Amino acid sequence: MRIDGLQYANWSENIFRQMREGGVDAVHVTIAYHENFRETVLNFERWNRWLEQYPDLIMKGLNAADIDRARDSGRTAIFFGFQNPSPIEDDIGLVEIVHTLGARFMQLTYNNQSLLATGCYEEEDSGITRMGRQVIKEMNRVGLVIDMSHSGDRSTIEAAELSERPIAITHANPHDWQPALRNKPHEVIEAVTRRGGMLGFSLYPHHLKDKSDCTLESFCHMIAETGARYGFEHIGIGSDLCQDQPDSVVEWMRVGRWSKEIDYGEGSASAPGFPPMPTWFQDNRDFINIERGLGNAGLSAEQVAGVMGGNWYRFFAENFGARS
Amino acid sequence: MRIDGLQYANWSENIFRQMREGGVDAVHVTIAYHENFRETVLNFERWNRWLEQYPDLIMKGLNAADIDRARDSGRTAIFFGFQNPSPIEDDIGLVEIVHTLGARFMQLTYNNQSLLATGCYEEEDSGITRMGRQVIKEMNRVGLVIDMSHSGDRSTIEAAELSERPIAITHANPHDWQPALRNKPHEVIEAVTRRGGMLGFSLYPHHLKDKSDCTLESFCHMIAETGARYGFEHIGIGSDLCQDQPDSVVEWMRVGRWSKEIDYGEGSASAPGFPPMPTWFQDNRDFINIERGLGNAGLSAEQVAGVMGGNWYRFFAENFGARS
Repeated sequence: MRIDGLQYANWSENIFRQMREGGVDAVHVTIAYHENFRETVLNFERWNRWLEQYPDLIMKGLNAADIDRARDSGRTAIFFGFQNPSPIEDDIGLVEIVHTLGARFMQLTYNNQSLLATGCYEEEDSGITRMGRQVIKEMNRVGLVIDMSHSGDRSTIEAAELSERPIAITHANPHDWQPALRNKPHEVIEAVTRRGGMLGFSLYPHHLKDKSDCTLESFCHMIAETGARYGFEHIGIGSDLCQDQPDSVVEWMRVGRWSKEIDYGEGSASAPGFPPMPTWFQDNRDFINIERGLGNAGLSAEQVAGVMGGNWYRFFAENFGARS
Repeated sequence: MRIDGLQYANWSENIFRQMREGGVDAVHVTIAYHENFRETVLNFERWNRWLEQYPDLIMKGLNAADIDRARDSGRTAIFFGFQNPSPIEDDIGLVEIVHTLGARFMQLTYNNQSLLATGCYEEEDSGITRMGRQVIKEMNRVGLVIDMSHSGDRSTIEAAELSERPIAITHANPHDWQPALRNKPHEVIEAVTRRGGMLGFSLYPHHLKDKSDCTLESFCHMIAETGARYGFEHIGIGSDLCQDQPDSVVEWMRVGRWSKEIDYGEGSASAPGFPPMPTWFQDNRDFINIERGLGNAGLSAEQVAGVMGGNWYRFFAENFGARS
């Protein structure tokens, strides 16, 4: 089973076909970075059209059983998520509404301070806000998973502690392997995984050792070490694949409409665009390389199966429904 | 000249007539607590209808000269403001749009953390955010005054420092007179007034010593002391008059739509509603009591005139236009 914990591609029939060629059973796709509620509904609509157009390639995923249905019919289950709480605006009632529409993950912040928590690009992290505490309770109630990939460290640890259900970092790597602002230090990974949460390893070059030149061996060795340290059942892949996106999209991801000045984020004035992906992970057909690499890095067959999809499957099964 | 730095009444012809009886030349009225942009536009529309219905009592105020026009024609100039940045949502471009529509004050927070700064009810105050820095620049550029009445202390001091134009605390009192969460400690008043900013004294009972039983003498003595300490040119009145509002409104002011649980704010479970106003300040006809009280507290005629309206007039004249 192969499940990708996060992608934000410029979706097309070509990419959906590559998912099938790559044997990808489920993908958590981002449908909001800066969109407000109404704009997010437009993105749900766009996916409804793709689901209608390509019923032989993709299907909507709402719970883990949908992954089984997708596998049985040779399709990829698409799960929706937000990298920002912007879709719920300032309205706690929208948490249940977006879950009903199909959202299954929501980051509490995207780089900046939100109404709920602090993003990893702010100078200071004051933790979970008053509204954040209320929203975490509501997300727990309906089964909308808290994702802290782009949050500050303190906010992430507090979210893990306050949440009564496991949380996720869908796409990031350990900070001690590659000291990127977006990668996570030990205390953060520990706080999340100790409570049953998941870490999805990112293939976005800024999160990789040696960036675009990162070797498959280094990536898989890092996974082996992380599994040994935090438990192989708490890790998966969250590729952060942004396939076929023009550079204008990464600019929009960084500044949305909150600034009149450009902010280069993980890029720079001289290299503002998307960085090239590693040669061994260009698109959805390359998960086989990681699978083999993990075997070569010494993981057991069972551990490899868990990292490639089994762990996300179990996490989806336990966390996408109303609390029982 | 009499200018009130903040009111949020349940507006009616009756109240507009009381403004005229009380000789009130200008009022800064709140038109947003939790409203998003579209909802705020509805509130501009509602005022447009009142302005159309009562042209002999009120007129729209956009700059200080409008106060002169109002006085000359026996009317009250109405200036619009927001107690929350919710009207600009996550969009810096809306700063100029709301200024064009007539907004002249905007609080960077209303009690809670916002996208811009920290509210006074949060446990921790991390100061001005990344978006907050950008928005302060834009507010400075177009002439939308930063109001920190409901903000945390650190955020207020940082806003005063970051802003290149004077800022305001339109409605609050010194914390050492009445230690309410909403009242301001020395460092905050100092940071604001030292840079040409204004403090408007609140008559909302939770901000008064002995609350609803506060005496006129105590209130005026506090003003005399504050003027002596920070300069009589930096103080005015911001009554926070919420005349004729039902208690459902104060509940909405406190929880908006960010919480499913009730939060009593400055009230309590046993006294959740609006507190009764002091006997000597029931409505717009009672400014004369304060004016006399200030004379009795030892202020000079010039100082009284400044506090009752002259200081706000000068502040409006200098801060409501594009930067020259």
